[in-house]
Amino acid sequence: MNTADSGRYRYEVLAERLAERIRAGGLPPGERLPSVRALSRKERVSISTALHAYELLERRGLVRSRPQSGYYVDYDTAAYFPPPEVSRPPLRPAYVDVGETIIDLLAIARSGEYAPFAAAVPADELLPVRRLNKIMADLCRRADNPGLRYELPPGNAELRRQLGRLSFDRGEKLGADDFIITTGCMEALNLALRAVARPGAVIAIESPAYYGILLTIASLGMKALEIPTHPSEGVRLEELEKILKRRRIDACLFSPNFNNPLGSLLSEDSKEYLARILQKYDTPLIEDDIYGDLHFDEERPRTVKSFDRKGQVLLCASFSKTLVPGYRVGYIAPGHRWQRDVEKLKFMNTVATNSPGQVVLAEYLRGGSYERHLRKLRRSFREQVATALALIRESFPEGTRISPPRGGFVLWIELPEGSDSHLLYNTALAHDIAILPGLAFSGTGSVPALHPFKLRSSME
Amino acid sequence: MNTADSGRYRYEVLAERLAERIRAGGLPPGERLPSVRALSRKERVSISTALHAYELLERRGLVRSRPQSGYYVDYDTAAYFPPPEVSRPPLRPAYVDVGETIIDLLAIARSGEYAPFAAAVPADELLPVRRLNKIMADLCRRADNPGLRYELPPGNAELRRQLGRLSFDRGEKLGADDFIITTGCMEALNLALRAVARPGAVIAIESPAYYGILLTIASLGMKALEIPTHPSEGVRLEELEKILKRRRIDACLFSPNFNNPLGSLLSEDSKEYLARILQKYDTPLIEDDIYGDLHFDEERPRTVKSFDRKGQVLLCASFSKTLVPGYRVGYIAPGHRWQRDVEKLKFMNTVATNSPGQVVLAEYLRGGSYERHLRKLRRSFREQVATALALIRESFPEGTRISPPRGGFVLWIELPEGSDSHLLYNTALAHDIAILPGLAFSGTGSVPALHPFKLRSSME
Repeated sequence: MNTADSGRYRYEVLAERLAERIRAGGLPPGERLPSVRALSRKERVSISTALHAYELLERRGLVRSRPQSGYYVDYDTAAYFPPPEVSRPPLRPAYVDVGETIIDLLAIARSGEYAPFAAAVPADELLPVRRLNKIMADLCRRADNPGLRYELPPGNAELRRQLGRLSFDRGEKLGADDFIITTGCMEALNLALRAVARPGAVIAIESPAYYGILLTIASLGMKALEIPTHPSEGVRLEELEKILKRRRIDACLFSPNFNNPLGSLLSEDSKEYLARILQKYDTPLIEDDIYGDLHFDEERPRTVKSFDRKGQVLLCASFSKTLVPGYRVGYIAPGHRWQRDVEKLKFMNTVATNSPGQVVLAEYLRGGSYERHLRKLRRSFREQVATALALIRESFPEGTRISPPRGGFVLWIELPEGSDSHLLYNTALAHDIAILPGLAFSGTGSVPALHPFKLRSSME
Repeated sequence: MNTADSGRYRYEVLAERLAERIRAGGLPPGERLPSVRALSRKERVSISTALHAYELLERRGLVRSRPQSGYYVDYDTAAYFPPPEVSRPPLRPAYVDVGETIIDLLAIARSGEYAPFAAAVPADELLPVRRLNKIMADLCRRADNPGLRYELPPGNAELRRQLGRLSFDRGEKLGADDFIITTGCMEALNLALRAVARPGAVIAIESPAYYGILLTIASLGMKALEIPTHPSEGVRLEELEKILKRRRIDACLFSPNFNNPLGSLLSEDSKEYLARILQKYDTPLIEDDIYGDLHFDEERPRTVKSFDRKGQVLLCASFSKTLVPGYRVGYIAPGHRWQRDVEKLKFMNTVATNSPGQVVLAEYLRGGSYERHLRKLRRSFREQVATALALIRESFPEGTRISPPRGGFVLWIELPEGSDSHLLYNTALAHDIAILPGLAFSGTGSVPALHPFKLRSSME
């Protein structure tokens, strides 16, 4: 395990082993742990590895250090903050009230005057800024810079080849011709919705779901049908199936890998089962995999697309969360049934995606350093989420519930009954802190929660 | 006139004066013109200016040189090719049949194996490639390169300030806050249509109209109502008004300045009148001004937006035809009634426009060389259109009709009765020449024409 685990540091493996013993009750709360030196000897690791392991456990809220005394098991605080319950939206389609929140949010995000916990944007320090700048600058020294010409749909050929290569890691068998480059994941979702559904159509979504998805469904004149969703296990397939037995759903739009805002993850078995349900009811799935590369566990989770036999899954993603938000380069693999329709819609929507972004990302991916970058990025997000969780456990009131994100960098927090998330949102704004109230993540007002955390701090 | 005419070269002014005399009948066909030396003496210009003036008239098909003999008036050939008639579409709204043509076109354009007369794309040699590359390269040397971060709607502030400055030349009084940056003009048109109309709505358009507009209207589930259009004077306002008296039109989508494919231009008086009609019937106008900067006459034509008193005009344009297609940077000035709706729709459609393109264009425009670049670009297009017209007059059969474009770089050619433009399209393809059959420019099949010319050759 220790050696096979190449993506993790030794101290993380050790911490995980200790965490398992603590959670299993082998080390009860309050018990004093071996000293750093003793742990180092016992586990045959360096002093520094042993120390890092304890520090990590402390960030995760499982142990606590006492000055001059050492480390103690301390997971009562974690017990104060269990995960939220499975959501219980009303099971009827609704035209979502869009409201003006998004305009305020854009103004807040643009102003740069607020602690930016309201938008899921990775910090510059976490991105391969120098490498991207270098490739772009080299490109600009070429008199025949292809970044100035159209890269018409389906988009830059080398970039699509690279996407084909990356798709193997997700268990898919896609090639360059299966992809269409888009202006970010949002355009991909738009094109997918327009390809498979018409105004008035019913789109099943997770509850809570990313507000951009709610807004987009509304803007296309479609209805959202929120499906109960487990905070860490993802959308409840048995509920989806019950509904499908009763009524037609025109399409599902899910983020099986680390949905924003819950960070939940649908298991591989569930994904396979979902693919079977979709086939049985001939229902298309728009699969938003934008956070899929940001898994906290060792393995890259598969996509539902990888279990798709009948071309029912339209896979959408982008590089905005992992490489560079400003380029606005995303993609869609719509499958053979919708490939031509989506390609046409792409032309009609924006003609083409900007060429400099496509050409630079193609070259970056060709260089082969994406996987190494992702390993560092994932570690950084994992650590920062743990730090944020520890801080929340220290500061938030009893009765708080927190999503246990399994990837990505978004936290969903439910405050004790009776809290007013909108009041908190406004109070935080007055203190120059931008968070998002949970209402923004549900069209039915069924989610009385608070969703605050975008994490940005520098990489170790 | 000669001195005020700073944007034109002396030989062009001289040629125009001679052309007017020829057209007015002062110099009948077949008449021998003064020798180059005599003209130079008479007009007090250099030999080279006199020679260039004759050469220009020759390209425009008004004179012909005979070896060892000199220049002769020769406009019979021009007489063979009168402008097309005003179009007569059936005056009823229709869901446009989209077809698969666009997929073929994209494949043809991407392949790079055809003489590219089917897409309205300026040649690289005509664009300020070096300057744009330099600005982008400088940007990439900055560790805090803003091109990597989101430029959220309404978009880059400096770029919007520059747009405000440019808008003064069009007779508008728009400021930075009136603009929203988009992913090219096509996204601007999409957002405008979605802001002012719903599926099933009736959109009045020119006939013929750019196929991308037809496709977009169709893709949004809206109906197109084609309005008779004069090949050089633009859409027939009296016909529009007759229809408006009879039935509701949800929006107009016109290109008053050099519509693709006709190159027609609505006069300033007509624009003012159109603004009054729109106000009277409370009908929004989506004004596509993408070719507005490419006028052949001295003055930049105004926009209908500049006559708009009630906020009924949504102005859409981009830099794809004048500076750089690959950046995909366009804009919309939707007016106060739709400003917030369009800003929201922009977020829902693509979140943001790519940042490198926005930042580089902002810096390019700030540098102040756009106007100088445009003067060269316009001269080049004017010359190339004249050359193409001369070649067509030499080679095309009797009965051909040609649009007299007043700006832009697109030619609309109607072949003699009985010609099959689709057959010609396929025959041309077999000879590695891409043109577009006129059918692509009408949803009702009422335009049996051929639209071939994208002009790309190098600048003088």
